[in-house]
This record gives sequence, C-alpha cells and structure tokens, in this order.
Amino acid sequence: MKVIIVGGVAGGMSAATRLRRLNEEAQIIIFEKGPYVSFANCGLPYYVSGEITDKSQLLVQTPESLQARFNLDVRPNHEVVGIDAVNKTVTVAHDGQYSTESYDHLILSPGAKPFVPPIDGLTEATNAFSLRNVPDLEKIMAVVEKQAPKNAVVIGAGFIGLEMAETLHARGLNVTIVEKAPHVLPPLDEEMAAFITKELTANGVTVRTSQSAVAFKENGKRILLEDGSELASDLTILSVGVTPENSLAKAAGIELGLRGGILVDERYETSVKDIYAVGDAIVVKNQVSGEDALISLASPANRQGRQVADILSGMKRTNKGSIGTAIVRTFNMTAASTGLSERAVRLLDKPFAVVHTSGKDHAGYYPGATDIHMKLIFNPETGEIYGAQGVGQKGVDKRIDILATAIKGNLTVEDLPELEFTYAPPFGSAKDPVNMLGYVALNVMEGLTDMIQWHEVTDATQSGKVILDVRNDSERQQGQFKNSVNIPLNDLRTRLHELDKDTEYIITCHSGLRSYVAERILKQADFKVENLDGAFSLYHTVLPEELDYV
Amino acid sequence: MKVIIVGGVAGGMSAATRLRRLNEEAQIIIFEKGPYVSFANCGLPYYVSGEITDKSQLLVQTPESLQARFNLDVRPNHEVVGIDAVNKTVTVAHDGQYSTESYDHLILSPGAKPFVPPIDGLTEATNAFSLRNVPDLEKIMAVVEKQAPKNAVVIGAGFIGLEMAETLHARGLNVTIVEKAPHVLPPLDEEMAAFITKELTANGVTVRTSQSAVAFKENGKRILLEDGSELASDLTILSVGVTPENSLAKAAGIELGLRGGILVDERYETSVKDIYAVGDAIVVKNQVSGEDALISLASPANRQGRQVADILSGMKRTNKGSIGTAIVRTFNMTAASTGLSERAVRLLDKPFAVVHTSGKDHAGYYPGATDIHMKLIFNPETGEIYGAQGVGQKGVDKRIDILATAIKGNLTVEDLPELEFTYAPPFGSAKDPVNMLGYVALNVMEGLTDMIQWHEVTDATQSGKVILDVRNDSERQQGQFKNSVNIPLNDLRTRLHELDKDTEYIITCHSGLRSYVAERILKQADFKVENLDGAFSLYHTVLPEELDYV
Repeated sequence: MKVIIVGGVAGGMSAATRLRRLNEEAQIIIFEKGPYVSFANCGLPYYVSGEITDKSQLLVQTPESLQARFNLDVRPNHEVVGIDAVNKTVTVAHDGQYSTESYDHLILSPGAKPFVPPIDGLTEATNAFSLRNVPDLEKIMAVVEKQAPKNAVVIGAGFIGLEMAETLHARGLNVTIVEKAPHVLPPLDEEMAAFITKELTANGVTVRTSQSAVAFKENGKRILLEDGSELASDLTILSVGVTPENSLAKAAGIELGLRGGILVDERYETSVKDIYAVGDAIVVKNQVSGEDALISLASPANRQGRQVADILSGMKRTNKGSIGTAIVRTFNMTAASTGLSERAVRLLDKPFAVVHTSGKDHAGYYPGATDIHMKLIFNPETGEIYGAQGVGQKGVDKRIDILATAIKGNLTVEDLPELEFTYAPPFGSAKDPVNMLGYVALNVMEGLTDMIQWHEVTDATQSGKVILDVRNDSERQQGQFKNSVNIPLNDLRTRLHELDKDTEYIITCHSGLRSYVAERILKQADFKVENLDGAFSLYHTVLPEELDYV
Repeated sequence: MKVIIVGGVAGGMSAATRLRRLNEEAQIIIFEKGPYVSFANCGLPYYVSGEITDKSQLLVQTPESLQARFNLDVRPNHEVVGIDAVNKTVTVAHDGQYSTESYDHLILSPGAKPFVPPIDGLTEATNAFSLRNVPDLEKIMAVVEKQAPKNAVVIGAGFIGLEMAETLHARGLNVTIVEKAPHVLPPLDEEMAAFITKELTANGVTVRTSQSAVAFKENGKRILLEDGSELASDLTILSVGVTPENSLAKAAGIELGLRGGILVDERYETSVKDIYAVGDAIVVKNQVSGEDALISLASPANRQGRQVADILSGMKRTNKGSIGTAIVRTFNMTAASTGLSERAVRLLDKPFAVVHTSGKDHAGYYPGATDIHMKLIFNPETGEIYGAQGVGQKGVDKRIDILATAIKGNLTVEDLPELEFTYAPPFGSAKDPVNMLGYVALNVMEGLTDMIQWHEVTDATQSGKVILDVRNDSERQQGQFKNSVNIPLNDLRTRLHELDKDTEYIITCHSGLRSYVAERILKQADFKVENLDGAFSLYHTVLPEELDYV
C-alpha cells in the first residue's frame, strides 16, 4: 500500500502516524508545501507575546524525527500541484522542478487559509499579515523586533484576532481591533461577548465594532475605515476568518460544497475514488443542527486524520461530524462556547429558550473565587441542549467541556442537575454552575419562572412594565435601573402592599438568585411578574448606557 | 401543609428553601441539634490551615437570614429525639425541655457521623477529635492556637484525613498519618494513591499504611500502634470514615439497610408513610454497579433535598442514585475519582480492563504544563465505563468531571475520542487526556495493544519475560528496570535482529506512547510482546523499590 498525504500538520500528520502504527509495510509520503511540518499552529500567537520563548518548541516534530520514529517520508517545501485520478498520480513542485508520484490512496489535508478581504491598497501594504504558519510568524516578528512598531491594528475579532490583540499589547503596542460584526467574538452571542469587550477596553485595547477597513494608504501605514476615520498602523493583522484551501481538489474535479469546502462521505472519501480528505478543508455535519458546516479546529482535524488511517486499514469508523467547541483567553478573562449560539439557533426554526446564570468558579467562601457567567441555549419542549457559552477568569474551560460532553452524549437539560462533579472548596461548589444551568432551565420548562431577556427590557418598560429591583440600597450604587421600584428581597413579604396587582413587574437583583425567590413570592401572591434573566450582572455589562449611576 | 425537617445542613436546607420557593403557604420548621445551620462543612479544614480566615465565612446562612429571605422557622440547638408516626408528631429536646410538634410531612436529613473506632483509652484522650461541624472545629482550633502542639496524628487517610494532614502541616505541626488500608485514599486504587503518598512524604508528612492505632495512652499523648511502635501526639484527628446517623430513624421503626443506612424508595419516602429521608444517612443505588451504597457527599445531598421538596409539591422526580465523584488536594497534587475503582469492579464479576495514561494538563509547548496521570476502568466487551481516577497538579478536576458526565450519560469508551473540548494552548491539548484514554482503551478492545499491568511485572519477569525499555540512555538514569534490554525507539527498526522471536517481551518507555509504537513495530514483525500500561512514570511511583538506580 502506498499512501500519499498532502499537508503535514494536524490532520495529515495524525493520519500518517496512525497509519504507520497500523501498518509497518505501507509506503507513506507526506508532501507539505511549507518549510515546516507538524508545527503547533495554535501556539503561534504565544510566541509573539513572548510566553513561548523558543521557536523550536513550536516544532513538535521534524522530518528527521518522523523518519526515525515512524519511518515516514516527509517532504517539506513540496507542493502537490495536480492530481491525475485516472492514473492515480500526483504532480509535485519542488525547487522549480516538477515530478510525479503514484499512489494507492491519497489523503488531502490542505487546511484552511486566511481569508484575505478585498481591501484597496492591501497588496501594497508591507506591514499587513495573516498568521497561519511559521513563515507568517517570522514576518510578524521581524516587524515587532526590528521596526519598533507603536500602533497595531487587528482586523477581525475572532479567536485568533483576540489572541493577537493581547499578544501585541503585551509587546507594548497600542492595539485597535476592527470588527465588522456588531460585537467581538462573532461565534459567541452579543451579551456574552460584551464581557470580553469590557476586558479588552479595561486593558487599553481600542475596540471598533460594526466597522470595516475600506482602504490601506501609504503602504499600509494608514487604514481608512468605513466611517471615514483613519487609523495609524505599523503592524496590521488580518484575521477575518479562513476559507478552505481547495485549489488542488477543485482542479482535480473533486466535488465541493459549502463555501468551497471539500465534500466527503462517512468514510472521508471524496467524490473521486481513493481520494480522501480531512481537516479544516472539509465540509462536516454540525451534530447539533444536522446542517453542513466548516469547522476549523485542531481537535476534529486530529480525530479525522486518525480515523481515515483506520479506514484505510480496514477498520470501521464513521465521520460523525462535529459540534465545534472553542476557547480564547483575553487578558484575565476567558470566553468559550460549544454547540450552537443563540443566533445560529434562531435560524433553525426550532423552539428555543435561553438562560443565563452567574456564580463562582469555586466555593465562594474559599479564597480566590471569581465570577463565572454561563449561558445555555436549549429546546424548552424536549430539553435538548443546543449550545452553551461561558466567560470568566477561571474554570470556564471546565464547564464548557462538561457541556460539550453532555451535548455529544445527547444529555438533556433534565440531566444537568443529576451530574456529580468533583467538589472540594478549591475546585467547585456543591451545586456547580453546570448543575445550576440545569435547575434554571428546568424552572423555565416547568413554568416556575418566566424569563425576560436583556434585549427585551427597554421595549417592555416603554410599554408600561415596571422594574422591581430587589437588591439592597448599597448595591444599587453600582448602577440603577431607570424608574425602577426598589424593595430589598428580605423586606418583600412585608411590603407586598406597596405593589400593584395590575402592573407587570420585571424583577431583578444582582445575579438572578434573589430575583427568582422574589418572583416565586409574587407569583404565589397573584402579581404579574417576569424575571430578568442574567439580572444586573449581565445587564450592566451589555447595556451599561441604559442604567443610571448616582 | 406543615413540614418538619430534621437537620439543617446540605440536604435539609436545600429541601427547606426549595419548598418555600414552591409554596409560600407551607409551614416549614427546621430542627438542628447543633448550634449552626447551613454551614460549609467541606470548608472546615481550610479554616484550620488559615486559608479561610473568618469563621463567619463558613456560616453560609443564619436562622435570621433564612427567616428573612425564606420565611423559614429554623431552630438550632433543637434535637428531635422521637417520632410518633401514628399521630404524626415529633418530640424535640431543647435546653433540657421536651416539646411536641406535629407534621404533615417529615424529612430526615441527619447526615452521617464520624465513625469512632473502638480503641483503648480513646474516651480518656483529651486531644483526639473528629471534624464534622463547627463545634468540632472550635475544639481543634483551641488546641492549635492555645496549646502550641508539636506533633499531630491523623488516623484515617481518606479525603478529610488528607485535608487535615495538610492543614495541620501548614500550621507547623509534625504530622503522621496512620491508615489501616495498604494505601492512602482507599477510594482510589493503590497505584494512583501512590502519587499522593509520594507528595505527602516529599512534604515531610509521615505515612504509615497497613497500620492501626490500638491504644491511646497518657490521655492521648501517646498512641500505640499495631506493630508495637508508639507515636507522640499533641493533637489527634479521627477520620476513619462515617456511619449513617440513624438513631432517630431506628427508634421510629424505619427500615434500615446497608450498614445502617436509611432505606428510601424512588420518591425518598422511608418505610413509614409521610416520613422522607435524604443526604448522607440514606442508602442510594450506585448507578454504575446497581448495588446499594452509602455516599457521603455534599452534591448528591443537595440534589436529594431539592428533589424531595419537588416531590412534596406534587412534581415528578426520581431518586436515580449516585455515582460518587470526589476530589482532594494534597499540597501541590490533586487526586480525584468517579464511579467505581478497579478494586470495586473486581468484586462485581463482570469483564473489565484498565488503562493508564500520562500526559500534560495543557499543551506541552506552552509554559507551565504539568503531568496528569489518568486511569480508566471499563468493560472491554461493551466499552461501558465503570470509573476513572486522576492525579496531577492541575486540571484533574476537569477531566474527572468530564468522565463523570460521560458515565452519567452512558457514554462508552468509543465515544471518548469523539468528545470535542475547548482547546487553546493554556487550557488543553488538541488530543485531551480524556480523548487519549478513549484511544488507548479502544486499542485494547480492538486488540491493537496487549497491556500488562504494573502489579503483574514481577511475576512475569520471574517466569522468563524480558523487559524491553525503549527510552533513551539519558532517561534511564532516573531508574532502570532490572535485567532489561534497552533499545531506544528510534533505533528499533534497525536493531530488530538483536531481539529473539521466542522471548516474550514487556515493552516500556516513560509515559506509554513510545512503548506502544514499539509494540506495533514488534507485533507486525511477529515478536511476542506486551505493553507495560502506565510505563515507567507509573511504575517508578508505585514500585520504586523494584528499580535499579545508577
């Protein structure tokens, strides 16, 4: 068996090494068009920041080590430029020379390439870079280390954009982020991303959302934005997203799908016999929505590479799709998500509800506990979990990983309170934030609470609803809801006569625990009430301008 | 509706507050025999260490706050001493006076009490304490703060015993742990507990296993052990386990089960109508084994309390049982487990296999990565997960929580590689330790690897098997397997002729990755080989005396 693999990073290299473990006799050649294979692409930003100090740490394997350990024929700087599927050969370009290599099976793992937006003057901009591989990193570092840059502009506030904003800030640059969407971190929903915007701003990064670059001037030294304003830039990072690297597949007549992604079947085989594809370049099934998706993440790519090796070795494996779980650290905050966002669910035409909770990453009475804000998107009729998001200083990865496991395992909202986690005060709480999400979602499903969302409040109060704030007087100094009625929860039972049974109240407190208790008291006394989901802690982050400050 | 609750901590107080949220009209009385309710019993050790500095932080709620917020009638220092189930009344002792209170529903949440071992002289020992509640804490602190104790002995090396050993060490005491079992942390298996013993010893705590105290002398100042040796003690902690607090239930004629635990049905009702029970005192179903179990943990107690309130309010809830998930921090190490241990599985007469992996808590190339050692116990025929254990400096809680979720959701070994976690270099790896456990377990199930366990090696080598160590020469200086053959993995393919096809080899490396690659090479070349599960990193922790050190 002779297997040729195109692309020597996550998917391709997982396929190669697994194949070797299964088959000592197979001839395995890996063609990589770049100078490095098996590098840690997710680690590149941390080299810019200086957290990773030795570039060799990013090179997990070398052609020599892969030859010695796995008897792999790894050829960097070799680009496969053509496929003859009839004769089962590939044409390879190297050093200006072309050669031909035959295969029994061909695995394409070309990855995704940064999308380069069609902006005037970009080709003349000498200081604008994407960050996909080690050569990109070297170009960026040449500017950072040798040109004493002062101002950086990051175009695109996705995961890599935010990492680069932080790392360039760590290098002492003034950083401005420009994002076309109305908020940073478009994979998350607006109100959860607001916590990250706040963190960026608090650390001195300028955030410009609903804004695009329309032209690069003076070789990229000045960037003109849509609103006519200009930004000075000594170093510009382009991180507006990625697109499948499909040129080879396209030329070979392989069927493409969603946004040019390579179509594969459940065995990772493309429309052309004996040609397989894995990694960021392929179209996968989103396991929550059931729809086609492009998911550019290292973890699925590694799994797919391994699975295709198994399949070529005669083992039964199925390409089941992905749910998409991701995380980013931004200064002292972390944001993570799994499954579908609320925005994505809205497009599905399925029943959905959302709940927000805030709690602590570990027992509040043990030192060092920090806030953790969670969101769950679910089907209120069946309890199916569509997705989850979290932000906080610590412990967000754990909660999203648990919820990703729950989604993969088809657990429902009703199962979340049943989950039993490791609890000791330094690690969690007896009722973990994940349990709490389940309790709150069940309260919604069972009609014990009627939630109103943060974005519905302004309309609701304009149509006559009244906010009832059950926080204490001292807490209201952090910000007050306009025209709200204030009765601290502990006084509520004795002050019910101050409220009006014909008025519709929206109850709030700081985190949502007390407002729920108040809601239960008032509902049982026949008042008309709703509970502000996420309460003040969410509202004052996403809509601070709607509050009064005394 | 009038509900009386006996016991005002986790289960009882969860029941009371949930009941109030569901029912403003119910009369709810909580009798607590101790002076405090709703205290953070899991936080008590951290007050001893000084990490928690203000005792009021341990008092999550007070009778006054519970009255104000939840309109609960909380009566500390009130002990329910009798139940008249026919007339539905309880007899309550308070300040030497007895009174009677009627109920419609009675909820027992008495908890578990420390088991006091029958040791000679214990009643005269003035310096020996259990740690269950705030008064216990006060007694311990009186010794710590006022008697300048030098030597402490902790009898029982379970979770609380280890926490107390660390906290007393933090107070400057010389600490000796005495444990009857052959290893510390009896809920874990021996080889995983070995990492914790090593950490205790490295920090100057003396560990005496397979050893018990047989007599207290000189009012507890000297402790005689089984082997005739004596320990000086200024402060002794008794933490040999807990036993259901069943005296009230027993007197009321309520049916008891396993080790005196209170028997309840799927609605938490005891054998006596209108009397319910929750928390550490009840017998639950272990959801993995299906057998009766006593599980003393805060998380299930809270859930049960809430569920019984729902049931009393007419909602449908089912007592599904527990899996038992627990964690302990010991100096810089953490140990955690979920589901069944290997030892527990051995008693079930079901097919089982175990695998050990070691990896890093996050990407190895990002600073601060630390070792994490995992164990999975599973059914090699069906892939059912029986249990998991982990030890390491960081990230153990996350992995065990994920595996607890997998067990609760009936995920199998085959599902673990499919799980998609939050991956960025500071948080994890593209192949998380949980994914790796799945891959390795699948390799076992599919016959790609034949594991030999650490405890089987000595017998195997004595019967003629030969250890083949594929580590590099420099690594072998950390310790060598006796009479082993050494061929670094990268040289193996070219040195196959040095090996003998009639010899049975046990292959090892440092963590198990390279030995598996070597196993695959040798198997395909028709050598007889097994792979040492857990490799050197496990073996040198659990059996250091079996190695040679040059």
